[in-house]
Amino acid sequence: MKKTTNQALVIFGASGDLTYRKLIPAVFDLYMNDSLPEGYAVLGVARSLFTDHQFRKKMREGISLFAHYKDAPADKMDDFLSRLFYLSIDTGKGEEYVHVKEKLDALNKKLDLGQNYIFYLSTPPSLYCTISKYLYGQGLTLQQRGFRRIIIEKPFGHDLASAIELNKQLLIFFQEDQIYRIDHYLGKETVQNLMVTRFANGIYEPLWNRNYIQHVEITAAESMGVEDRGGYYDHSGALRDMIQNHLLQVASLVAMEPPNKITAEEIRYEKLKVFRSLRPFSKEDLRENVIRGQYTDATVRGKQYNGYRDEKNVDPASRTETYVAMKVYIDNWRWQGVPFYIRTGKRLPTNVTEVVIHFNPSPMKLFKPADGSTIPDNQLIIRIQPDEGILLKTGMKVPGNGYEVKPVNMDFHYSELNDDYIPSAYERLILDCMNGDNMLYMSNEAVEATWKFVQPILDYWENDKDAPLHGYPSGTWGPDVADNLIEGEENTWRYPCKNLAEDGVYCEL
Amino acid sequence: MKKTTNQALVIFGASGDLTYRKLIPAVFDLYMNDSLPEGYAVLGVARSLFTDHQFRKKMREGISLFAHYKDAPADKMDDFLSRLFYLSIDTGKGEEYVHVKEKLDALNKKLDLGQNYIFYLSTPPSLYCTISKYLYGQGLTLQQRGFRRIIIEKPFGHDLASAIELNKQLLIFFQEDQIYRIDHYLGKETVQNLMVTRFANGIYEPLWNRNYIQHVEITAAESMGVEDRGGYYDHSGALRDMIQNHLLQVASLVAMEPPNKITAEEIRYEKLKVFRSLRPFSKEDLRENVIRGQYTDATVRGKQYNGYRDEKNVDPASRTETYVAMKVYIDNWRWQGVPFYIRTGKRLPTNVTEVVIHFNPSPMKLFKPADGSTIPDNQLIIRIQPDEGILLKTGMKVPGNGYEVKPVNMDFHYSELNDDYIPSAYERLILDCMNGDNMLYMSNEAVEATWKFVQPILDYWENDKDAPLHGYPSGTWGPDVADNLIEGEENTWRYPCKNLAEDGVYCEL
Repeated sequence: MKKTTNQALVIFGASGDLTYRKLIPAVFDLYMNDSLPEGYAVLGVARSLFTDHQFRKKMREGISLFAHYKDAPADKMDDFLSRLFYLSIDTGKGEEYVHVKEKLDALNKKLDLGQNYIFYLSTPPSLYCTISKYLYGQGLTLQQRGFRRIIIEKPFGHDLASAIELNKQLLIFFQEDQIYRIDHYLGKETVQNLMVTRFANGIYEPLWNRNYIQHVEITAAESMGVEDRGGYYDHSGALRDMIQNHLLQVASLVAMEPPNKITAEEIRYEKLKVFRSLRPFSKEDLRENVIRGQYTDATVRGKQYNGYRDEKNVDPASRTETYVAMKVYIDNWRWQGVPFYIRTGKRLPTNVTEVVIHFNPSPMKLFKPADGSTIPDNQLIIRIQPDEGILLKTGMKVPGNGYEVKPVNMDFHYSELNDDYIPSAYERLILDCMNGDNMLYMSNEAVEATWKFVQPILDYWENDKDAPLHGYPSGTWGPDVADNLIEGEENTWRYPCKNLAEDGVYCEL
Repeated sequence: MKKTTNQALVIFGASGDLTYRKLIPAVFDLYMNDSLPEGYAVLGVARSLFTDHQFRKKMREGISLFAHYKDAPADKMDDFLSRLFYLSIDTGKGEEYVHVKEKLDALNKKLDLGQNYIFYLSTPPSLYCTISKYLYGQGLTLQQRGFRRIIIEKPFGHDLASAIELNKQLLIFFQEDQIYRIDHYLGKETVQNLMVTRFANGIYEPLWNRNYIQHVEITAAESMGVEDRGGYYDHSGALRDMIQNHLLQVASLVAMEPPNKITAEEIRYEKLKVFRSLRPFSKEDLRENVIRGQYTDATVRGKQYNGYRDEKNVDPASRTETYVAMKVYIDNWRWQGVPFYIRTGKRLPTNVTEVVIHFNPSPMKLFKPADGSTIPDNQLIIRIQPDEGILLKTGMKVPGNGYEVKPVNMDFHYSELNDDYIPSAYERLILDCMNGDNMLYMSNEAVEATWKFVQPILDYWENDKDAPLHGYPSGTWGPDVADNLIEGEENTWRYPCKNLAEDGVYCEL
C-alpha cells in the first residue's frame, strides 16, 4: 500500500456527532493502520468554543468509544491527538475565513502538509455553498500549490431542483473532480463485494440476467424509530433518506454491466447507465407500484412503542413516510422484464440490509417435497448487514428413500475471515479521498439521475391528496399491501427474521 | 411410505463378512424404520454348519456392531432375530436345492410370505450361474405365484467377455427385470444427491456444460492398502475394483442429460447414453492418458508401511495396479472437449471420494490477489464421503482498501441435517429391490458398456510389456506423472488434505 502524501483534513462541523462518532475514530484507525502520511493534521472548525486541548480531549473520548483500535496504547493515542487542532469561527461569516487560511498556513509550515487540504463538510446542507464560497474567497479551493478536495455529506439536495442547484453552485468554486459526494453505504465492505462477487467469478455472470433471474429484492430494514432525529426526518422521509441514495446505489451495483477496468471513471459510468435506465414511473405505477407507510404505536413483547406522529419534533398530522416499497424496472437488454423490489422502513422487526437474487425455477419439477409443497426457487442472498456474508439457497435430496427435495443453505460469513481487518465505511472512504480516488463517491450526474427518478414520487405524494399513506404497527414488516407488489401467486417479500433457525437473524423488536 | 409386500430374503453366502457387517444390519435398520412387511423372513444359506440359533446369535453380534440402531431395545432385537433362519447346503450341488425349496415352502406357510423371494448372491462370482441354474431347477425363478428377484454382487464379470457371458447365462434362468446388479456406491445418499442437485435447482443446469465447465475431477482415494484382500485384489486391481463400476457410475450421474421422468427406465437409459458416449481410448491415449501405479513401502510419520508386493497373498512380482488416473472424454453435444479426470488409489494420504466441477475462469481478470497469484477458478465440490456435503469455492473481496480477491468457501454439510436419518447404502438398495425398483441397480447394457470402455486398457496392460507401471510411495498422491494428465499450465489434481484448514479433511496416513 503506497503511503498517502502529506495533507490536512479540515472538518467543518467538528463539534458535531459525526465527527465524534465516525470521522475522528476512522482517521485514528487509519493512523493505527499506518495509512497516514508523515505530515498530517486534522483541523476541526466550528462555532463552538474549544481549545485544541479541549477538542483533543473530546476526540480521545470518541476514539475510545468508537474506534476499532479503541484500546490502542496511550503513546499512540497521544501522538495522534497531537496532530488535532481546532479553530472556532462563525462559518456563516466570510470575513472569518481568513483565520482558516492563517491556521492552515501555520500548520503547513509546522507540519509540511504540502498545502494539500481536504475540506469535510459535516454541516447542515444549507452551509455547503456558503462554506465553499468563503473557502474560494481565501483561494483555498485552487490547486496551484497542493490539492484541494471537498467532501459533501448527504443529503445532497432535497429534490431534483435543489440538487441541480447545489451542483451548479459548488461547480463555481470547485471542479467536479475536486468534489467528493459521500454515501457511506458505498464504503461498506459487503457493498463493494457485490461487484467483486459478480465479476471475479466465472459462475455468476452467465446467470446474471433476465434469462435466469426472476426478480431482485433489496431491503434495508431498521428496528429503530426516528429516535431524536424527528425534526430532520419529518422533512425528509424514507424515500429521500434511504432510497434516492443508498438503495439505488446498491441496485446499480447489482445491475451494472461489467466495467472495462476497475477505475473510478469506468465504474461510475456503468452505474450511471443503470440510473439512466430506470424506467420512469407512470401515473399508474405511482399509484400501484410505490407503497408508503408510517409506523403506528404498538406493544411488542410487552414493550410499548410510540407511533411516528407521537415522536419528538414530528408534526402530529405528519404525512412523512417511514416505509417505502417499490417495484422498479431497468430498461436495458440485460434486465428487461425483471422487477427490482426495493424496500426500506423504520420500526420493522429487525435490522437487516440485504440483496436477494431470486433465480428462475427449474423448468421441470422432477422432484417434489414430501408434503407436496413447492420448493422455493434458488436464491442468492447477499447480506450487507449485520452478519455480512453470502448465502445460496438450493434444493438437495432429503436423506432416505425416494427423491424428495428440501431447501438447504450454503453460506459464507465475513466473520469467518477472522484474520482480516475490516475497515469501517468512513475509514475506507476518507482514505480513498486522501488518495484522490473518487470511485466510491457519487458523481453529479448520478445524483441528478437518481433525483430525477424519485422526483415524480415526491410530486405525487405532495400534490395528490388521494395518494395513500398506510399505517403499519411498529414491529411489523410494513403495510400488508406491499405484498401485492410482488408478482407471482406464491411469491412474497423475504422476511428474514420469520425464519430464525434458518438464517440466524434475530428479531430486534 | 407405502409398506412393502410380504416376502423373504434368501442370502447365499450367509456365513460371510458382507452378511454379518452390511446385509443383516441393513435389514435390521429397515425393520426399525418400519419398512419391513408383516410377513417377512431372512433365510441364510451357506455351507457352514449353523443352527438357526447360532446364526441368530452371530447376526445379533453383527447388528450390535454395525447397525444404525445398534442400541435397539432387546425385545425389538429378539422379534427381528426370530425371523432369521439358516439352511446349510453345499451350494455347488444341485440336488441340495430341494432343501431350499422345502424350507421356503415351510416358511411361506408359517409366515405368509406370498411366495415372494429375493435371492441375494453374496458368494464368489464363480457361483452366480451355478446357483441361478439350481434355483431355476427348483422352479424358484419363475414368477407365476410370487415375485422372484436376484441380487448379484460385484464383480459382475472380470472383463468384457466374461461379463457378456455372465449376462447371457443369467438370462437363461431369469428375465432381465428380475436381475438386480448391485453397486453399493449408487446407494449412497450423496451419489443420489448428485442428480437432485443438478435437476432440482434452476442455477446449476444452465452452467452444466462445455460452455461453463472447464473440466471435471472424480476422485476416490483410500488410505488403506489391500489389507487381507490381497488374494482377490491381485487378480482384480483398481481399474476393475473401482473404476469400471463405481466411478463410471458417478461420472454418468454428473454427465447425464435431464431425464424426462424420475423412473428407473428413464434414468438408466440416460446413464447408458453417457457410457455409450465415452470416447474409446486410442493407442496413444492408452499410453498417455491412462496412468497406473502401485504403492511401494514407505515410512509415514514414523510408521512403516509395506509395499503392495509385500502384502499377504500378493505375487512378489505383481503388476497389478493399486492406482489409476485417466483422462476421459464424453463425445456428445454437452461435453465435447471437456476432460473428465478420474482417479482412484490405495495407500493415498486420506480417505475421500468427491466430484469437483471446475468452472471456466471469468473471461476478464478484473481483480487480482494481493500477491499477484492467480485466483483459482470457481469449483463446486460434491463430497461423497466422508463429511458428505457440497462446497462452492468462489472469489470474494479481501476486506480493506482496493479490490483484491481471495477464494472463500460456501458450504453445506449433510451433518447439518441432524434431524434426518441417513440410511446406509445397503439399506436403501435392499428396500428398493423389495419394492421392485431397479433404478439404482445396473442394467446388463450398462455393465457391458462400461466393460467395453475399460477392456482396451486391460488388454494394453496385459499385452504390452512396455506399458508402464509407476511405483508410488505409500502416503503420497500416486505417481507424479499423473499430474501431466491435467491440461493447463496451472492446473493440478485437487489434493484435499494438503489444505487442512480450508476443507476440514484430515490426512489419514
